Amino acid sequence: MNEIKIFSPATVANVSCGFDVLGFCLDSVGDEMVIRKTDKKGIHITKIEGFDLPYEPELNVAGVSALAMYEAIDVDFGFEIEIYKNIKPGSGIGSSAASAVGSVFGMNELLGKPFNKTQLTAFAIKGEALASKCEHADNLAPALFGGFTLVKSLTPLEILEIPSPNELYVTIIHPQIEIKTSEARAILPKEVPLQDAIAQWANLGSLVHALHTSDYNLIQNSLHDVIVEPYRSTLIPHYNEVKKAALKAGALGTGISGSGPSIFSLSKGLEAANSVKEAIEKVYSRTNILFDMHVSKINVEGVKIL
Amino acid sequence: MNEIKIFSPATVANVSCGFDVLGFCLDSVGDEMVIRKTDKKGIHITKIEGFDLPYEPELNVAGVSALAMYEAIDVDFGFEIEIYKNIKPGSGIGSSAASAVGSVFGMNELLGKPFNKTQLTAFAIKGEALASKCEHADNLAPALFGGFTLVKSLTPLEILEIPSPNELYVTIIHPQIEIKTSEARAILPKEVPLQDAIAQWANLGSLVHALHTSDYNLIQNSLHDVIVEPYRSTLIPHYNEVKKAALKAGALGTGISGSGPSIFSLSKGLEAANSVKEAIEKVYSRTNILFDMHVSKINVEGVKIL
Repeated sequence: MNEIKIFSPATVANVSCGFDVLGFCLDSVGDEMVIRKTDKKGIHITKIEGFDLPYEPELNVAGVSALAMYEAIDVDFGFEIEIYKNIKPGSGIGSSAASAVGSVFGMNELLGKPFNKTQLTAFAIKGEALASKCEHADNLAPALFGGFTLVKSLTPLEILEIPSPNELYVTIIHPQIEIKTSEARAILPKEVPLQDAIAQWANLGSLVHALHTSDYNLIQNSLHDVIVEPYRSTLIPHYNEVKKAALKAGALGTGISGSGPSIFSLSKGLEAANSVKEAIEKVYSRTNILFDMHVSKINVEGVKIL
Repeated sequence: MNEIKIFSPATVANVSCGFDVLGFCLDSVGDEMVIRKTDKKGIHITKIEGFDLPYEPELNVAGVSALAMYEAIDVDFGFEIEIYKNIKPGSGIGSSAASAVGSVFGMNELLGKPFNKTQLTAFAIKGEALASKCEHADNLAPALFGGFTLVKSLTPLEILEIPSPNELYVTIIHPQIEIKTSEARAILPKEVPLQDAIAQWANLGSLVHALHTSDYNLIQNSLHDVIVEPYRSTLIPHYNEVKKAALKAGALGTGISGSGPSIFSLSKGLEAANSVKEAIEKVYSRTNILFDMHVSKINVEGVKIL
């Protein structure tokens, strides 16, 4: 096998109470990439469609993660990467993670899978760091492993696969506005009230338990974020209206996807997820902000060969 | 049935990363109580052995929780309570919780179980509040439900039963010193660094996952407390030495039981738990502080009829 085409999925990081540790993977939204072995040594990005991104590997997220893996192997050939980008950079649903994951997943397949998924995450972190200026894995992990993941720690890298209940669907709205990651970060307090932290970890512990037991009521009761949402939601126009409409339409919970501006809602069943989509559409249609929407099952497989 | 004898177990609250929400139940340490229906209406404490505690129901933890339940029922008889106290008050292994739970559990049995365990917890909270000056359920819940419990919230009262891996054993040392609950509380900061809070909830999420999957390595990697232990451990003489010795002897993790002074260590298997006991004994034998030690399986049943 000298060439493969892969699907690298969008992901939702943070997931309300799981700030900085939890994430899940989408099914219907993602990039496509072609990875090809070439006689010419090194990493070469040969095509980029969808968005205007740099071709220099060391300036491109997919290129940086590919280079990180390439440095760890000893081969007399190189790789070409074609990127068909569907996930808009800066949308808050793991655009850079999809790029970072896609190249290393594809290369690993062509090499005969010398690396496990945690090792692939470690390479991909280097690419993610180019985009977000810090090393984190909360989008990379669900993109690689699929389903829900908990990044227990970065050093050493420990990723846990949390079960994903069958009927869980997600509705995403991506308002076409820009939130600078630096601003989303700067708005967070350095210290938080101990009582709020306790409420947050009670909810995260409960959510992990609820995912293990497929307890949708408990998922609903756990999807609260008392730490980050009060700050970051102020950066997203009409956030509270969207959340109110989504919950009224039957969503189990609604929160900020990554650092925004996308907003995710989890629902039990496709029908509910579609009702939530309609309810949110109504809210945003009354504004003059352009937006995209997606409804997706949770993708338990993660990045895959097409 | 007019009279029953019950065993009301000791419990460990907080469990390192689960501060204020997590707890588990002991098997080999606990109080015994006799609950008896009487023609005389009201709650009457007729015998207390082991420790010097008040007989007036409204001044006695078991009495206060019994009164809370008694007010919620309409019967033309009363209850007598005999308390055979084995758990020393103030030891940090749920002495007041055992008393508070025992009376309402026993009364509920004699009444034909009109109340579920969450409702019993709500009555017992009133008794616990007498002892600890605040309403909390992190010892009550494991005493009533057995195994590991997560108190997701107090209002409304939501208690989750987390699976307990079969081979999990606990070693407890109770140094015979007094730590005032007020002091243990005052020493905690009102605010904590966001990064520490994230580390704590990553560990708690991981611990819940590890308990569900019986992953002892992950239990070991999750039993860390970056928030409370650095403060409260300073109140317990030789805490760091005990912890170091326990971990060296094979404990999966060591932490403060409740607000101390007791220290718990979790181990895989009875043999390991006994080795941990020996190692800790060596440390404390070199001091002039009296101490008790217990080794126990996790008690998945909780309070029970003898």
